[in-house]
Amino acid sequence: MTPTVTLADVVGRIQPLNPAAGVKAQAALDQKTKPRRSLGRLEDIAVWLAQVSGDPKPTIPKKVIVVAAADHGVAAAGVSAYPSDVTAQMVMNFVSGGAAINVLARQANADLVVVDVGVKTPVVASELLERRIRAGTANMLDEPAMSLDQALATIGNGVDLADDLLRKGYKCIGLGEMGIGNTTAASALVACLLKLPVADVTGRGTGLDDAGLRRKIDTIETAIARRQPQPDDPLDVLAKVGGLEIGFLAGVCLGAAANRQAVILDGFITGAAALIACQLVPSLREYLLASHVSVERGHRYVLAHLGLKPLLDFDLRLGEGTGAALAMPIVDAALHVLHDMATFGDAGVSDTGR
Amino acid sequence: MTPTVTLADVVGRIQPLNPAAGVKAQAALDQKTKPRRSLGRLEDIAVWLAQVSGDPKPTIPKKVIVVAAADHGVAAAGVSAYPSDVTAQMVMNFVSGGAAINVLARQANADLVVVDVGVKTPVVASELLERRIRAGTANMLDEPAMSLDQALATIGNGVDLADDLLRKGYKCIGLGEMGIGNTTAASALVACLLKLPVADVTGRGTGLDDAGLRRKIDTIETAIARRQPQPDDPLDVLAKVGGLEIGFLAGVCLGAAANRQAVILDGFITGAAALIACQLVPSLREYLLASHVSVERGHRYVLAHLGLKPLLDFDLRLGEGTGAALAMPIVDAALHVLHDMATFGDAGVSDTGR
Repeated sequence: MTPTVTLADVVGRIQPLNPAAGVKAQAALDQKTKPRRSLGRLEDIAVWLAQVSGDPKPTIPKKVIVVAAADHGVAAAGVSAYPSDVTAQMVMNFVSGGAAINVLARQANADLVVVDVGVKTPVVASELLERRIRAGTANMLDEPAMSLDQALATIGNGVDLADDLLRKGYKCIGLGEMGIGNTTAASALVACLLKLPVADVTGRGTGLDDAGLRRKIDTIETAIARRQPQPDDPLDVLAKVGGLEIGFLAGVCLGAAANRQAVILDGFITGAAALIACQLVPSLREYLLASHVSVERGHRYVLAHLGLKPLLDFDLRLGEGTGAALAMPIVDAALHVLHDMATFGDAGVSDTGR
Repeated sequence: MTPTVTLADVVGRIQPLNPAAGVKAQAALDQKTKPRRSLGRLEDIAVWLAQVSGDPKPTIPKKVIVVAAADHGVAAAGVSAYPSDVTAQMVMNFVSGGAAINVLARQANADLVVVDVGVKTPVVASELLERRIRAGTANMLDEPAMSLDQALATIGNGVDLADDLLRKGYKCIGLGEMGIGNTTAASALVACLLKLPVADVTGRGTGLDDAGLRRKIDTIETAIARRQPQPDDPLDVLAKVGGLEIGFLAGVCLGAAANRQAVILDGFITGAAALIACQLVPSLREYLLASHVSVERGHRYVLAHLGLKPLLDFDLRLGEGTGAALAMPIVDAALHVLHDMATFGDAGVSDTGR
């Protein structure tokens, strides 16, 4: 499937946040029956949503979680505790409604869109969105993970999905992913883009032992030495050592920011996707909310680089968008405060605490 | 109103958690389609609820937030940014549904019970539970905040409420409070019980400036010097420098633990209440979940002493049970994972990641 937009198009559409809407939202919060700023980050979130939407009193957004699934040729190097087959099996589990993200999205009142962007064995299911670029990436040890055209195509498909979601009324998009081997690709990407030692940004993924972790670090170092991705060219890095779902989710970030949709990140993989998007358009980071900080050690570096403070620190390391789903009720809570609380005037409460 | 239970009764009813139910819950979680332990604290919460209830697969609990309101004689010393009148005004706001806790409890699917345990000017409203001990505490600078009998009575009323809530089917109780001056009482209590310098555990409450904070610290130091509460006697400390709502909430903790109801703490005041309860029955801490860590600086010491790790760090400093309400959807999420996720067997997913 060929994307309908070019990268230059979407980059040109991304505007800064609306500070005036945020000022008005904070002023409204300051009239509510509570000491000023006493709801801390909850107030920050309400103000941020006003800035993102441009509406000083944004409605509770219609929410969706996009789970992009793809396989990774580098899994053949033994960098994951699970075999590549599990990617397709888990996609079926998403479609059947039995995975963690199904359970948590339901509770968060979020819809779920599962996208096959390059699972090794195609999954056939009517509930599945098909945006396949290729049957998984190539093994980055042997050749570039994908071509530059393929990297641009998967990004473009992500942009298109954000546009489609906007047409369907979704104003808040949580990012999720599935792909055996994708922490390897994300660590390679982050090491290159942030110019950090591979060992600093590489963790145990789904549960490697010490020997497995050493093998994973060696694999990434070797792949980077062989592929020579250019650190200042995020598209080159994505193509040479990245992943199809990572590029797709970078595209969702770009499209969402262009559409003034709020983006809720999940863990390390979605953080790597956001990093690519932000290297293309630095101001895009203002459209991102970090739901949590993962056990996967590279995640802290990504969040620090993007200047994002995670809402939760729950030792999560599952991905799928589970952290994003957990953050969504908090986002709703922030807006309920803005909409539903009485003001000092309404309630006849003395506002002397200034 | 005279409590129906004695302290010795309720203390005798408190049993340890049920470790076997927790082991079974973790075993069930380990069969779900995810790497083991990859949902981190969410799994901890599900296991904890199994241990608390004694049921390896506890149902989503019926939830309530108890907001205990009382006034503090020490407010006359100018230790708060707000006048005492605001306590009654806010109680009316709770009854009318316009406060932050109303909004957040609704979103958390929790009922709200507002209790007047000693507001200066009685609030008349049919929705309000009346458990008044006296019209606010005495000013601890001049005399003990309350008598020992009054301290025991407010604790007993809290125990009775927990029993009543159990009869109504509530298995999860969030704690909340309102009372102008109550961070002063809580700081005095915590300084005594944890034998810490007053300045270390005293913060700005609803928003004191630097001069106000110094006055607050001086007030507490003077009150402690004059009243000489015995640090190893929590009832003596509660009576001399505590608060009616703090004692009442300590009673709710005791009753809830005796009933195997889960308790979700809020901020510094509810932490001080839990500290009293845990000094009476140390094993009670196992029944407590810390929803958040407050801006109020004494709170960190209380949580550290109780060995509780807060779920959220949102710079909250409102009280009312707002943090407890924010934690409730997370508790529900943990149980939804336990109940609704597919197992490896159900979903046909390879479980090789051990």
